[in-house]
Amino acid sequence: MTETELHQGSEHADGVVDLLGMLAYATLSGFFRLTDDAAIAVSLADKMALAEMAVAEYGHFRRLLRRLEELDVDPGTAMQPFVQALDAFHARTRPADWLEGLVKAYVGDGISADFYRTIADLLDPPTQALVSEVLADTGQADFVIARVREAITADPSVAGRLALWARRLVGEALGQAQRIAAEREALARLLVGGDPAQLGKIGRMFAKLTDAHSGRMAALGLAGQGAR
Amino acid sequence: MTETELHQGSEHADGVVDLLGMLAYATLSGFFRLTDDAAIAVSLADKMALAEMAVAEYGHFRRLLRRLEELDVDPGTAMQPFVQALDAFHARTRPADWLEGLVKAYVGDGISADFYRTIADLLDPPTQALVSEVLADTGQADFVIARVREAITADPSVAGRLALWARRLVGEALGQAQRIAAEREALARLLVGGDPAQLGKIGRMFAKLTDAHSGRMAALGLAGQGAR
Repeated sequence: MTETELHQGSEHADGVVDLLGMLAYATLSGFFRLTDDAAIAVSLADKMALAEMAVAEYGHFRRLLRRLEELDVDPGTAMQPFVQALDAFHARTRPADWLEGLVKAYVGDGISADFYRTIADLLDPPTQALVSEVLADTGQADFVIARVREAITADPSVAGRLALWARRLVGEALGQAQRIAAEREALARLLVGGDPAQLGKIGRMFAKLTDAHSGRMAALGLAGQGAR
Repeated sequence: MTETELHQGSEHADGVVDLLGMLAYATLSGFFRLTDDAAIAVSLADKMALAEMAVAEYGHFRRLLRRLEELDVDPGTAMQPFVQALDAFHARTRPADWLEGLVKAYVGDGISADFYRTIADLLDPPTQALVSEVLADTGQADFVIARVREAITADPSVAGRLALWARRLVGEALGQAQRIAAEREALARLLVGGDPAQLGKIGRMFAKLTDAHSGRMAALGLAGQGAR
């Protein structure tokens, strides 16, 4: 193995550990957020639906943990670098009510999933398969879209407020993702194909994330809202 | 089938549905409480340990739901009569911190489990087996005992506060249990062997619950604390 290959190999391994660690802490946080939403759900049916999604999210967390252990990496050590950024994101985007919680679960998770998938695409096929497995939708999207559309039908004035809220979520999510991409060298190198000078690539990736976000806003019935 | 047998049969069936419905809502509430404790745990190891227990508790909830469905009973309808009493208990015993949350998980769940087991003992063997399965300890007791004893060693002054807290928990738990036993006719009849005049029996059952509680206080290192 040449020096370059060795270097690329360990760089790749660092990227895998970073991605899995980040994703593990994100799914653990997602689990807590979904249980919070479930706890404040008014109907027992909604409560159970959200609790089921939370438990499914915890199953994803367990899969990532097992993979880190297979790679002989301590999960706590792998997650630690991302605890602060993800906790900060959640602290800055605490939903004021049930609807904001739902929009956050859909919009926030959507844009994060796109971010994780972009990184996974640069890694090996088994890692890609695992990431796509743990990012699989657990019924959340349909549930949120139905509930948000119902709420808008019942009271059209909520649309503007939720659209602004979604825009804030995206801003905060991109901010934290940018911070992570810049601070974690292994991730930054992966994203720019080994050339740290090409930071513009990261910017273009973020532009792509924002495009996908627009599709989700349309699904919620929030496209073109809140801009006035 | 005689009139009496039929009556006893339907009374037994009502008791089973009440017990399963109550237990289902209790495990769902337990799931939320454990996730709250996990969310505020400082170390990632504690966070994961508590989240694992929460998910195990949710598995118990699912088992009860499935059983209610097998009996052709709508789970929401079976749980509904107990929502208010259990929510009131949790609202009146909101832990002020992590240690109070742990003590609540152990002391509150312990006394509730004794209450549910007492009722199950009066029912059919399959119901007894299911109840004993879903009340099986998920590692919670050892976890709590270890953490509380560590905290007392680090700062002996917490013992008095936690002992008083545990006493308040038991008072509130017994109050709600008494209310449930009195309000739900099917349960009250079961507990007094079909003779509603023998309400003293319920009192004696509560005395037995209090005795078992003393054993848990001793395990926590809180026996004889807080009485001064």
